[in-house]
Amino acid sequence: MRYHRIPDETVRRLPVYLRGLMVSADQGHEHISSQSLADFVGVDAWQIRKDLSYFGDFGTPGVGYNIEKLARGIKKTLRLDVIRRAALVGVGDLGSALLAYPGFRLYGLDIVAAFDIDPTKVGEAVNGIEIESAAKIDTLKRREITLAIVAVPRAAAQATVDQLVAAGVRGILNFAPSKVIAPKRVKVITLDIAMELARLPYYIPRAEQAAET
Amino acid sequence: MRYHRIPDETVRRLPVYLRGLMVSADQGHEHISSQSLADFVGVDAWQIRKDLSYFGDFGTPGVGYNIEKLARGIKKTLRLDVIRRAALVGVGDLGSALLAYPGFRLYGLDIVAAFDIDPTKVGEAVNGIEIESAAKIDTLKRREITLAIVAVPRAAAQATVDQLVAAGVRGILNFAPSKVIAPKRVKVITLDIAMELARLPYYIPRAEQAAET
Repeated sequence: MRYHRIPDETVRRLPVYLRGLMVSADQGHEHISSQSLADFVGVDAWQIRKDLSYFGDFGTPGVGYNIEKLARGIKKTLRLDVIRRAALVGVGDLGSALLAYPGFRLYGLDIVAAFDIDPTKVGEAVNGIEIESAAKIDTLKRREITLAIVAVPRAAAQATVDQLVAAGVRGILNFAPSKVIAPKRVKVITLDIAMELARLPYYIPRAEQAAET
Repeated sequence: MRYHRIPDETVRRLPVYLRGLMVSADQGHEHISSQSLADFVGVDAWQIRKDLSYFGDFGTPGVGYNIEKLARGIKKTLRLDVIRRAALVGVGDLGSALLAYPGFRLYGLDIVAAFDIDPTKVGEAVNGIEIESAAKIDTLKRREITLAIVAVPRAAAQATVDQLVAAGVRGILNFAPSKVIAPKRVKVITLDIAMELARLPYYIPRAEQAAET
């Protein structure tokens, strides 16, 4: 079983490489050197070579990586080579944006169900998906939906995660700015958008800010 | 000048620690051990101690870290100790969600301007902010707004970033699923939401998926 064999930080970077490879293939390239990929995705070439060494060597000296083969290898490693069905919980501003977001399909992810606690929203369709009552989250197991996106308010996050875990969900992307607890068998990635923005001021030196005023 | 002195990976984790400290303070705690903080934020205790060693030692053996002092130290290090004004470009589904998002203020970030290219949106107000024409992005310098959030479609991302760079913006949080190029003095963080979701299937073993069907 390969479970957890590859470090989390590498798993974090592999989709970045995959995106770089997809764009490079779109531009008509067949091969790419680790240095070109490095320049493209903004990761050091040695880091890329090390990350790719975890699951096999796709490079040929002097020629570089075969883009199609490497992309296929990354997809297989990340288990993106089959279409995954995902559910969204919380169809507010952010949830609606996520339902409308075309990017998920690029990575073989298909949002096929949406839930909300608000009875006035239930039955409405957003981007072709009918909103169901949050009470029906327990149907996910039967529907073989094992991925979920949580876009509920902070206060509702833990209860929602508990419901999803009980419904057999194994991976959760949590947008609520809140720590949520789940059993070890369930992978939770919390994406606090404000926290990402909070990293930016560090890179803006105070002196330059003052100089600009 | 401290610019770039702390590794990017540490800068990435500091807001996570800060959130943990804020929640812990809300719960009435005054001190926290690196182990408790580790359990809370899901990062190893040795990693936390190493990260915090970059900007001073706030811990007392047997007592732990003084939460208020450590939070202040992290905020100062991340330059979150002053309110930062930010602009949003692209008021579509995601942009509207971001304007409505209360989390930014937690980190001293204030979205005070919004731009869109669509003339039918210009003049409308979203969450109290009047949408301006994207042609007015060049006013940001004069308004001393040095942070921007880009939520435009992929095809418009680079042109938007070019406009923001020309307007003196120094930090950009880019939600367009696209690589954008900016001068070294401008820090760009690209947050491809689909790419985050793409990391999840790796953690769901195929065997277990099959067993569940």
